[in-house]
Amino acid sequence: MQKPPRIVVLGAGFGGLTFCQSFRHPTAEIILLDRQNHHLFQPLLYQVATAGLSAPEIAQPIRGILSTHPNVTVHLALVTGIDVVSRRVTSEVGVFDYDYLVVALGGRTSYFGHPQWEEFAPGLKSLDDAQRIRRELLMAFEKAESTSDLEERRRLMTIVVVGGGPTGVELAGACAELTRSVLRADFRHIDPRQARVILIEGSPRLLGQFSDSLGREAAERLTAMGVEVRCGVRVEDIRSGVVQLTGETLVAANILWAAGVAASPLTTQLGAELDRSGRVKVASDLSVPAHPEVFAIGDLAAVVDKDGQVVPGVSPAAMQEARHVARQIEDELEGLPDARRPFDYWDKGSMATIGRSAAVAKVGAFELTGFPAWLAWLFVHLVFLIGFRNRLAVMLQWAYSYFTYKRGARIIYGLRRPR
Amino acid sequence: MQKPPRIVVLGAGFGGLTFCQSFRHPTAEIILLDRQNHHLFQPLLYQVATAGLSAPEIAQPIRGILSTHPNVTVHLALVTGIDVVSRRVTSEVGVFDYDYLVVALGGRTSYFGHPQWEEFAPGLKSLDDAQRIRRELLMAFEKAESTSDLEERRRLMTIVVVGGGPTGVELAGACAELTRSVLRADFRHIDPRQARVILIEGSPRLLGQFSDSLGREAAERLTAMGVEVRCGVRVEDIRSGVVQLTGETLVAANILWAAGVAASPLTTQLGAELDRSGRVKVASDLSVPAHPEVFAIGDLAAVVDKDGQVVPGVSPAAMQEARHVARQIEDELEGLPDARRPFDYWDKGSMATIGRSAAVAKVGAFELTGFPAWLAWLFVHLVFLIGFRNRLAVMLQWAYSYFTYKRGARIIYGLRRPR
Repeated sequence: MQKPPRIVVLGAGFGGLTFCQSFRHPTAEIILLDRQNHHLFQPLLYQVATAGLSAPEIAQPIRGILSTHPNVTVHLALVTGIDVVSRRVTSEVGVFDYDYLVVALGGRTSYFGHPQWEEFAPGLKSLDDAQRIRRELLMAFEKAESTSDLEERRRLMTIVVVGGGPTGVELAGACAELTRSVLRADFRHIDPRQARVILIEGSPRLLGQFSDSLGREAAERLTAMGVEVRCGVRVEDIRSGVVQLTGETLVAANILWAAGVAASPLTTQLGAELDRSGRVKVASDLSVPAHPEVFAIGDLAAVVDKDGQVVPGVSPAAMQEARHVARQIEDELEGLPDARRPFDYWDKGSMATIGRSAAVAKVGAFELTGFPAWLAWLFVHLVFLIGFRNRLAVMLQWAYSYFTYKRGARIIYGLRRPR
Repeated sequence: MQKPPRIVVLGAGFGGLTFCQSFRHPTAEIILLDRQNHHLFQPLLYQVATAGLSAPEIAQPIRGILSTHPNVTVHLALVTGIDVVSRRVTSEVGVFDYDYLVVALGGRTSYFGHPQWEEFAPGLKSLDDAQRIRRELLMAFEKAESTSDLEERRRLMTIVVVGGGPTGVELAGACAELTRSVLRADFRHIDPRQARVILIEGSPRLLGQFSDSLGREAAERLTAMGVEVRCGVRVEDIRSGVVQLTGETLVAANILWAAGVAASPLTTQLGAELDRSGRVKVASDLSVPAHPEVFAIGDLAAVVDKDGQVVPGVSPAAMQEARHVARQIEDELEGLPDARRPFDYWDKGSMATIGRSAAVAKVGAFELTGFPAWLAWLFVHLVFLIGFRNRLAVMLQWAYSYFTYKRGARIIYGLRRPR
């Protein structure tokens, strides 16, 4: 008897998971490897970092999502190597041979050649990152309450967010709300409303991928919320509690990095050309050049679709790519002609939230701002959040926060680790 | 002008928090110190450990609870010393003089003179403990799925719970449900229903503080759920992954310790007589003998009430003690006669849950078992859970788990720590 064709999928983000969910074939088996046991709804990660949501509300166990897909076997394992010549993946839990490989490992925070900044300016890619940021944000205010040194207090109550894309805008807005509304009444010696939230962006304006007017709208909204927006400012260096700008030094207990994303370093093992961010330049069918059995999708693939459109690193793109690859492999296994086709990206629009009742969105030629954009943001994020229970739980948290100006997840743990 | 009287409260558990909430006096100021930023609803901690609830659902920020009490200042700080002679508390964030001291630091896991067991058999006192246990429980099944060594697989799928009191019974029941229902469909190489859950109790029966028949009922229910209940069995030694009983060796990836509680070691600094568990033997007004300005309440106080009843270490007792002390200090500050009165405990009953639709409860002379006891347990725990949002969130989780046989918090984090 012939061995069934085996597809190894690396990563259970939006790309890898969608592939496993949408792939249908009577015999093929799928092995899915991920370094975590959960799929993470990354678009809401900044809310975990700013104590609005708890970690399990934006994460779902991968096994649970795929329990009704008996052809999929999940292993919790770090991928350590890819050998495209012998068609083999090595991991913490062993070696897996493949007939097809779908690489969907996503991106990680990039410090533009300054990896030493990571220690002082955490990025936001995992639940552990988010909980570290939450702990350090909340701890700074706890320490400020207990110190009588005024300069130290100012340092503790200063937050710098580096990067004016959607993540930076969302983080800065959430930090401003945290300090201005949520924590307002809870201290006796400090006034959290005097906290400084500074948003640094290297280019001349916020939200580069949106229009000029949406970028200006975001800056105005943030300023009204108390954020100091600084565009066209270069970060020269980051040290412990210090951001060195050209000609200015910012002293801040919390420095959050939202400036750059690079592909997983495993892309270097695919033997393909990479772009500046380390992403694989894939062929029009999303396969890796010279390896038609290897596909790269999601944030680690540099994709130009059949209309010449550069596909952005967003979750709808990863999901569309996953379905495209699934259809191609199914057709090929069935022996159908023309199994390979150029990928066609359908841009559903993009959005960024700024804070309470404020967001910006573009859908095709349409642009939305303010409350309508915020409602649209709310709706889209709830619909795409995986799992009925999570959707309800998040809705409950949001309703609670909206009406009470409180946040449900202001819990510091990992502060005093069990031995 | 005279300085206002200052009351220092140590610990924001049920006792310390209730004191701060119920104390009313026009001038007195309260300083509350706790090593965490949250009040923890300990009775539900075992559900966080077994992935039923997420940590923020059973915790509330202390500052948030007390934000409407302007006379209370909260400091997040470990207490490092108590000097009852100079009336002074030292802590991580500085020194606090007091006129009255309320010591409500609670208990900690006790290993009966074998502190080296802690490393291999974690106890369950904090959110960090619960998350460690959750991580290790879930990780064992992940590893079992990825190994082909059958003996190793059996080890990974064995859970030993030491201690047959309410916590041990609840943990064992929750582990049985986790393996038999929740994880059932999610693996391809292992059958989680074959996991062994072994409950060890040194005395001849479970739930010593309940009646014989309730203890038997609990044992029968647990056995029906697949738990191996072993009473009258002595633990001789615990090593990494090994529980040594008299004449038998159990090999288990997860060993959970639910056998003993001892008072916080700071009780030794109060200059008072301690009982075998390190609890302070307080006077009838709950003050520390020879120090009428120092009170000890909750799990670290050995209290005999005015009817000669030994007060158990449960949250309702701590809350009643807190109110008693608050009334006494208020009256004393007002210069009323007979400010000191013997404490009178009102036993509202006690209960332990075993699993889905099963619990035991006693209220006075009444005993309940099965579904009615479980409904009572549900109701009491929801009513006493602090905070409207938490109550709703927990209700949602429980309804979800009850109807779907799933659990909402099966998320492993802290697995790969951010640097």
